[in-house]
Order: sequence, then C-alpha cells, then structure tokens
Amino acid sequence: MPRFFVEDVSGDEIIISGPDAVHIGRSLRMRLGDEIIICCKGMEYRSEILTISDSGVMCRVLSCGKSKCEPNVRLTLFQAMPKSDKLEFIVQKAVELGAAEICPVLTARCVSRPDEKSFRKKLERLNKIALEAAKQCGRGVVPKVTEMISFNECVERLKACDIGLMCYENGGINLREAEIESGKSIGLFIGSEGGFEPDEAGRCADEGIRLVGLGNRILRCETAPIAALSIIMNLTGNM
Amino acid sequence: MPRFFVEDVSGDEIIISGPDAVHIGRSLRMRLGDEIIICCKGMEYRSEILTISDSGVMCRVLSCGKSKCEPNVRLTLFQAMPKSDKLEFIVQKAVELGAAEICPVLTARCVSRPDEKSFRKKLERLNKIALEAAKQCGRGVVPKVTEMISFNECVERLKACDIGLMCYENGGINLREAEIESGKSIGLFIGSEGGFEPDEAGRCADEGIRLVGLGNRILRCETAPIAALSIIMNLTGNM
Repeated sequence: MPRFFVEDVSGDEIIISGPDAVHIGRSLRMRLGDEIIICCKGMEYRSEILTISDSGVMCRVLSCGKSKCEPNVRLTLFQAMPKSDKLEFIVQKAVELGAAEICPVLTARCVSRPDEKSFRKKLERLNKIALEAAKQCGRGVVPKVTEMISFNECVERLKACDIGLMCYENGGINLREAEIESGKSIGLFIGSEGGFEPDEAGRCADEGIRLVGLGNRILRCETAPIAALSIIMNLTGNM
Repeated sequence: MPRFFVEDVSGDEIIISGPDAVHIGRSLRMRLGDEIIICCKGMEYRSEILTISDSGVMCRVLSCGKSKCEPNVRLTLFQAMPKSDKLEFIVQKAVELGAAEICPVLTARCVSRPDEKSFRKKLERLNKIALEAAKQCGRGVVPKVTEMISFNECVERLKACDIGLMCYENGGINLREAEIESGKSIGLFIGSEGGFEPDEAGRCADEGIRLVGLGNRILRCETAPIAALSIIMNLTGNM
C-alpha cells in the first residue's frame, strides 16, 4: 500500500499536500475510497481517500498503530564525508537498515571537503533520498540527514549516546563484544576512504567511545556502514 | 602492499604475466627489489621483484603464510538475477564481505531473464569485478561468479551445504536463531526484486533449507545480500 509522510496529525482527517498530492492523483491514479498509509512520528494511519486534487488529498483515518518497522534502538550514523556520490548511497542504505539520523562529519582524512554552502545544496538532495528510501522500505519516520559537523562536535554527540562506537580499521573489539544490547541510543562513527588518523582513534578511546573492528578484510568506506548497521540491528534484535 | 593472484606456485620463484605484469611495470612503476603480495589458493607469498618486463615479472618468495583475510566458513551466495547492473554491485560487496562463490539463479519472479549466451558475456565482466574487489579488500582467494543456474539446481546445491538458508520476505526465523555457527559451508539464497513465490519458499522449507527473515523493513534486493552476509560473518566470528 502506498505510504506517505506528514508533519502532524490531529483528529481523524488528514490532508496530504505538495508533490505527494499530485503523485497520488496523477502518477498513482488513485481514486476516492482507495486506501493509503500515512505516517507521522512513528505512527501509521491506515486511511481512506475522501477527495483528490493537485492542491491536496483529504483522507479519513480508518485505523492507526505504532509502526512495526521502527527499530527499538535509536541509531545515529556519523559518517565521515566520502568522495563523489557515495554519501547518497550510504544514506539510502542506512535508512533501509533502520538508522534514525545520518550525520556527515569532516575528519582529518576526508578527501571531499565541501564548504558549508555547497554542502547545503547537496543536503536537500540527500534528504530527498532519505524520504524516498523511507517510503520504499516501510519506515515509520523519515530519518534526517543533518548539516555537516566537525570531528569535535561528533565526539560530543557520540558521548551523548548511551553507546558510542567508532569503526577503526586498525583494530578494535568485535561488535558482539561491545555490549551494545543495553543501549537505547547508539552512535556509530565510520571513516572516509582513508579511515581515521591514530590521533582521532586515540581521542575517541579516551572519551569512552568503543573502538570496534569489522574483521580483517579492508571494507570500502561505503560498505563499512552497511555492514556495521546490519550487525548492530541483528545484535539488538531489530533484524 | 600491492596484491596479485596467480594460479599456481611451485618453488620459491613466481612469474606474474599478462595484464598484471604490465600494470606492475607501467602503472605502479615498481622497481627491482620492491615487495608485493602474491596470492594463490588462500596462501600469501610476500615476494621481492627480481626482473620486470611487459611479458612477465619474476619474483622471489621471501616468506609465506595462510591468508588472514579468508573466513573460516565457505559461504556461497545464491543470488536470484536482479535487474540492470545490480549484480555487479552485489558481486563487489559479496567479495568484500567474504563470500567464497557467487551463483546467479533464475527464479520465478526474476524480471531480468538473460539467455545463457548473453549472460556469458556479462560473466566475464562480473568475474573481473570479483578479481578487482579481491585485490582491493585483501582476499586470499578470488571468489568465482558461476554460470546462471535454475531454481532446482540451486535447491540441490543448497542441500549440499552444511547449512542452507533462504531469506524470505514473508517471514522466517532470525539469523541468530538459525544455528549457523556449526556449519563449515553455508549456502545463502536471496531473491530478486519481487522476492520469492510462496511455492519456492515451501519447496525450500520441505528440503530442509532454513527460511530466515531480515526484519520488518523491506530491503532492496541488493541490500539484502549485504545485510545477510554481514550478519552471518559476524555470527560465525569472521567480522
């Protein structure tokens, strides 16, 4: 059943506006009485279409419940800026795999170092990819891609999570040994193409962030977040 | 250190020929005395270059040992044919994540149904991708991409594995409950865009193949093999 996201729901009537309204009427050619899923803040509203126009689709809520697709752990992916369009790929996959938020980070070895202004242009596109992925895989919320942050900000944000993890290519404990099951919020820090500087790893370790390894093979910087997210979702019972 | 694969090693001198020889001399501009890693059948030979020409690079073995990057489980990925160039992506990632072999399968819901002849053309390219990925991530062997097989052949091959797994979108046990740790050979069957027909899942279940689920979110057909491989490699202590 088609799935749409809205900002707010009050009462039992919901209006879908903007491009989604056009999409419902023209691309999907839906009709009055057809059912759709409307998602808002982790809740899912099975709804019936009452009226359709390009400016808005009015729906009546038939039933509602908590989304079954949201993990019970809030995982933030802190991803060091990769080259070319790899971040788009990482965002799409991270949304499918259950990340709550994707936070690009500028680390010492990032080859791609966009300035704030040029990154802001990309950000719109990245959030659109997150929205489309959320619709496609059945998420109950749309994970947000945030502004780019510095390494120091990232460390502070990792410390604010119940469990902060850094995937370090020069070794660390296995994710199974990182005792992540007890955390309600997990921060996962993944490097760019060149990985992390030893200084960065040392700083994280000093701050209580757990250094984890992903085995002996050298994973590409876009493979590492997918692998780590999959394993974490499995270990926490969400996959 | 650059890594090259050869078919056979006997004695303490190894000759690298073909495109790799040209690559060593011209692209990498290596010199006499430089060291490279030569891989053969899961063994790694740290070697010193003795002579360089476009027709062959002669090396002397300095030391050798078993590859530390090969998993202790032989995992074959049976991947139902996906659309467009997704199989290329899946092959690259499966090699990084430790698959021993990738076996494309024609299932009921495959939209992409190349005939044998046109697939054979693709196969060369797929095996080249596997080779490049193996070099890049540090594998000790080059996983093979095989000819396309039928659903029935796939079932027979899954039965021949210690543990046969089918990722079924309509539910199954969690990979953690599938008791895969005891197997030396694991076969993992992943569907195409449309997933599997209930008949196909029923047949696999009847044949003792374990139906496993990957959570409530709908994973794209190229995300599912990466997620499942990551989880299996973690559960078996290889990641």
